[in-house]
Amino acid sequence: MKVIQVGIVGGTGYTGVELLRLLANHPQAEVKVITSRAEDGVRVDTLYPSLRGFYDLSFTVPNVDTLATCDLVFFATPHGVAQAMMPALIERGVRVVDLSADFRIRDQQVWEQWYGQEHGCPELIEKAVYGLPEVNREQIKSAQLVACPGCYPTATQLGFIPLLEQGLVDAGDLIASAASGVSGAGRQGKIDNLMSEVSDSFKAYACGGHRHLPEIEQGLSDILPSQDESVQVTFVPHLLPMIRGIHATLYANLKAPVADIQALFEERYANEPFVDVLPAGSHPQTRTVKSSNICRISVFEPQQRGKVVVLSVIDNLTKGASGQAIQNMNIMFGFEETLGLNQVAILP
Amino acid sequence: MKVIQVGIVGGTGYTGVELLRLLANHPQAEVKVITSRAEDGVRVDTLYPSLRGFYDLSFTVPNVDTLATCDLVFFATPHGVAQAMMPALIERGVRVVDLSADFRIRDQQVWEQWYGQEHGCPELIEKAVYGLPEVNREQIKSAQLVACPGCYPTATQLGFIPLLEQGLVDAGDLIASAASGVSGAGRQGKIDNLMSEVSDSFKAYACGGHRHLPEIEQGLSDILPSQDESVQVTFVPHLLPMIRGIHATLYANLKAPVADIQALFEERYANEPFVDVLPAGSHPQTRTVKSSNICRISVFEPQQRGKVVVLSVIDNLTKGASGQAIQNMNIMFGFEETLGLNQVAILP
Amino acid sequence: MKVIQVGIVGGTGYTGVELLRLLANHPQAEVKVITSRAEDGVRVDTLYPSLRGFYDLSFTVPNVDTLATCDLVFFATPHGVAQAMMPALIERGVRVVDLSADFRIRDQQVWEQWYGQEHGCPELIEKAVYGLPEVNREQIKSAQLVACPGCYPTATQLGFIPLLEQGLVDAGDLIASAASGVSGAGRQGKIDNLMSEVSDSFKAYACGGHRHLPEIEQGLSDILPSQDESVQVTFVPHLLPMIRGIHATLYANLKAPVADIQALFEERYANEPFVDVLPAGSHPQTRTVKSSNICRISVFEPQQRGKVVVLSVIDNLTKGASGQAIQNMNIMFGFEETLGLNQVAILP
Amino acid sequence: MKVIQVGIVGGTGYTGVELLRLLANHPQAEVKVITSRAEDGVRVDTLYPSLRGFYDLSFTVPNVDTLATCDLVFFATPHGVAQAMMPALIERGVRVVDLSADFRIRDQQVWEQWYGQEHGCPELIEKAVYGLPEVNREQIKSAQLVACPGCYPTATQLGFIPLLEQGLVDAGDLIASAASGVSGAGRQGKIDNLMSEVSDSFKAYACGGHRHLPEIEQGLSDILPSQDESVQVTFVPHLLPMIRGIHATLYANLKAPVADIQALFEERYANEPFVDVLPAGSHPQTRTVKSSNICRISVFEPQQRGKVVVLSVIDNLTKGASGQAIQNMNIMFGFEETLGLNQVAILP
Repeated sequence: MKVIQVGIVGGTGYTGVELLRLLANHPQAEVKVITSRAEDGVRVDTLYPSLRGFYDLSFTVPNVDTLATCDLVFFATPHGVAQAMMPALIERGVRVVDLSADFRIRDQQVWEQWYGQEHGCPELIEKAVYGLPEVNREQIKSAQLVACPGCYPTATQLGFIPLLEQGLVDAGDLIASAASGVSGAGRQGKIDNLMSEVSDSFKAYACGGHRHLPEIEQGLSDILPSQDESVQVTFVPHLLPMIRGIHATLYANLKAPVADIQALFEERYANEPFVDVLPAGSHPQTRTVKSSNICRISVFEPQQRGKVVVLSVIDNLTKGASGQAIQNMNIMFGFEETLGLNQVAILP
Repeated sequence: MKVIQVGIVGGTGYTGVELLRLLANHPQAEVKVITSRAEDGVRVDTLYPSLRGFYDLSFTVPNVDTLATCDLVFFATPHGVAQAMMPALIERGVRVVDLSADFRIRDQQVWEQWYGQEHGCPELIEKAVYGLPEVNREQIKSAQLVACPGCYPTATQLGFIPLLEQGLVDAGDLIASAASGVSGAGRQGKIDNLMSEVSDSFKAYACGGHRHLPEIEQGLSDILPSQDESVQVTFVPHLLPMIRGIHATLYANLKAPVADIQALFEERYANEPFVDVLPAGSHPQTRTVKSSNICRISVFEPQQRGKVVVLSVIDNLTKGASGQAIQNMNIMFGFEETLGLNQVAILP
Repeated sequence: MKVIQVGIVGGTGYTGVELLRLLANHPQAEVKVITSRAEDGVRVDTLYPSLRGFYDLSFTVPNVDTLATCDLVFFATPHGVAQAMMPALIERGVRVVDLSADFRIRDQQVWEQWYGQEHGCPELIEKAVYGLPEVNREQIKSAQLVACPGCYPTATQLGFIPLLEQGLVDAGDLIASAASGVSGAGRQGKIDNLMSEVSDSFKAYACGGHRHLPEIEQGLSDILPSQDESVQVTFVPHLLPMIRGIHATLYANLKAPVADIQALFEERYANEPFVDVLPAGSHPQTRTVKSSNICRISVFEPQQRGKVVVLSVIDNLTKGASGQAIQNMNIMFGFEETLGLNQVAILP
Repeated sequence: MKVIQVGIVGGTGYTGVELLRLLANHPQAEVKVITSRAEDGVRVDTLYPSLRGFYDLSFTVPNVDTLATCDLVFFATPHGVAQAMMPALIERGVRVVDLSADFRIRDQQVWEQWYGQEHGCPELIEKAVYGLPEVNREQIKSAQLVACPGCYPTATQLGFIPLLEQGLVDAGDLIASAASGVSGAGRQGKIDNLMSEVSDSFKAYACGGHRHLPEIEQGLSDILPSQDESVQVTFVPHLLPMIRGIHATLYANLKAPVADIQALFEERYANEPFVDVLPAGSHPQTRTVKSSNICRISVFEPQQRGKVVVLSVIDNLTKGASGQAIQNMNIMFGFEETLGLNQVAILP
């Protein structure tokens, strides 16, 4: 099988370096071009010495002609950037996995309201496939444009799916109390993300409304067995004093007693290579998925009171971003889905 | 006003050293005796060099006669210990603040079920006043035995009180998604609490049932305006990769729209020296209360959907244990309630 | 004794908020004015919620007339700022404690070489007293301008003083292998200081030359018993994945065997309120001085091979900056030297 | 090439789980047996959920007959354990890589003095090859028993080798000021290693003498060009508030000026797959080697004063233990030396 050529737009951020880490040992993909306006001409291993010995590659200014020579382009950019370059790449037949939020929301107005700007190419929104393989594997295979899910939405949806697909819980009263490591805030020089500000502390943020909320609600609505119900999620993100990891604690009300919720989860994910349902009574720890593409899940019904609690953990940079992007790439190009993604989590 | 003599039983743990830190500069209290079987004869500043220069005191084996010469005895012991010595001290007229769980639960059977042992002196349970000053200030003044609240229960109750006292939310569907620093796990040589195990990770624990649940439900039941309702809390504790701090994220359903929830909270706590309601839209950070006795609270109604989210932070060792114990002492002895508790949180 | 009025120039950084924390409970000093161009009009407790309830004060644009109404002005600014305002304040008779590097180096050329700019008021350099009380207490009493030592220089000098004052070690071959918490890097939005960059890692920096080197060498030269020797220090700073604390590991070669180095250190600091020599064989931990103004020191001669190792720890924001500044203020105004500085370190 | 069968004695500690992580994806080695008395019968992925999906293996009580069916046995045990089983395994022709200290020191008396016990099989000491491939690659190829170096000795020796091999520095006055993450302290339930005790703090330890000192001095003596000189190292280890990583800051005095120290280092390690000399002026960060088998090194001569400073970083569990053990295995069995060891460090 031929090795594909890959481009990365916006390679200086944390999802960029995570793509480079994972692709360094991927047997079927080779990074041909990586872009950054600010670091034009700088070697990637100067910016990230962890890559010394793995890449002989420098950042270049983004250029459509160069990117169009790639089989696949990843966008690892802030929202708003992929929109601008997307039409030219799509027109030339390049396949794209967009790690940003630009094409995740199908309702253009909703997108514009939450992201506070006009959408740059609304005509491509409907072309995009939402890249959660556990739901959309078939569509991803042939997609030209995959919108890779956000980190919170990945952990949250994977936790709720078994319950909502079967219509077992009240879709109108879901709670996602989730927490993320600080790498989720990106690599920008902001006082709020200094170590002196965020280590040794914990806080909720964006309690009044976070941009991942409409993405979560859209994704969960899609899997409801009946569209008579509407999904309503109370989503409160928190910032953890650690670098990597997302932990979602999910609460839902059972419509009726369920005999064996544990079995429900185990069966739903029995064939999923990257979702691991833990034995009953276990609690997933973010460290058990650090640097791996796995989502680990536990489910409880405390005191058998009809309230289900699901615990779901991922590495926000891997299954929550770059690992899932490569999982999508593998599916799109007919590779083994786990190719290059078999890392064991670093523990301790 | 005379300086009172204070004894501490079980002084080697983290609530013990926190009592010593706070009492070192308390103008009306002096630590006369501190006990530890394991460290008998060892100077407190050998075990805790941070105390060098502040105390000329060594641990001694607990002895009722010695403790009975104190005006007040703090129990900073694991559950089960205070019960054994309590009758002798109470009989001799010593006043006691018990930081352990021994006298927090009024229903003996509930206590025995959750703590897995028989209660050692059930006859004193009803004598104990639950030491949450924001609810029970008057009874504390004259109490001989104060049961100091747990850390999670303190943060959770202070967050729910304004809503429940007024009967504004459904008491039967409350959620407390809370997280604690690792000092809450105590100072014992367990693999589970090693830095290599718990730093750089996040997890829920005891999701099936935590001992603070009955304490929280009892406390919240007590403040309901009508006993027609019954309180049901889904309580999920999490372990934070940091030493000090508790953050409770609380969810409740409004029975009917409330015009100004922010004002409700501000008015409830206007005269409380240790509860600070933040301006609307703020999110409390645990670091803003680190080493201080303050509880900071914010309240939100996201997207005005009828779900209230309360964020409540304390330092688990201060307002969640030793600081609140001293606050109780101040009330019991007629001192200014804030005496010795005016520390500014360490930030950064 | 009257309460003095205090001004703080540059109050938004970490030394600024540490001054506010310590002065909040100082019985003889009151903060009258605090300046910041960027935060003009913002309340200090909006920027630092830890101060809520302690100050009713807002930042203002720096103004000489306002500052001149203070008894004492602290400069908590980056280097270069104090120089510009200093002549006007000095002329009006205001006393000043400068926490920046502007007046620490007596040799103007050396200062200009290391700080890469012209000195703004060289005429005041000789007026400045170097504010290390353990060396210059007498001169500080009457000083109008005190240059408060840097954090690394404080820890390093206090560790070497007993050896160098007595001429016991080779002054030409001293090594200071030191490490600082990240708060030492200040509160500026730089990528290099993001939590994702500096937590969970350790590195040396500025190995080729750090600005604290000439300050250390000047300070150590001043205390040599004979000026025949010249001081040469190899100084390698490191960045610790934690917020507060400096640890200096100091190496020196004994000129001749010394009978009792432990006693030498204990005697030198017997009357110093803020230097604590630990019992022989102990190792100081930075956490035992966190948020306190104390320097703890241990001394070893491993394998009796003639190499002395001194371990010296301080809190970089307290004894290494704001605490020492207040210690200087106390000395200058005839207050008890420990006034407002009797905090017990936060542990755990 | 055939896949070899591997046994691990003492698999519950951190070097054990690190061996399992690295071997999970090693194409030429398969873990056949892993022992633990305490966890007999427990699946490895129950103890370490990060391994779920990679191993279908349980711990068993150590048994010589079972271990003797392996091609290679790793000892990942505390000192003293390997000695007891070694003769039986050696006799049966099994090859062994011992990660413990049992066979690192050639002088039995020195070993017994520093480890405080009699050596259990002194007759095998001389059979052991010290497994630092950068020095002993040839002997390792045919060795039956390899004594894998300690973590501090690895970082320290790799930093000093280029200078000492050429006789450029005074071997009698070397300083190793080194710091380790807490995983180096192992996985045992000790109060001293609790997160509440060691996070958010920094300290030196064992300043009077650490067991790695004789190993370092022996290793450095071996590479001296002339045995007229004797090696003397002042070694001060420190404990870092993070899990993985060793940073050694090394100081030595040049005997005479050296034209290009940078080139000296680059040439020495030009062909070493796991030693990376950074560009002049760079400072290595431990995070750039986290979870990888690489040692990164920088060298400075500050202010050209004749004092060389070498900075050397490794991951204590990888190049400092389990990664180096597998590197030795690869050499012993004629595999590509980097097989299974091409992980990119996790960053951020």
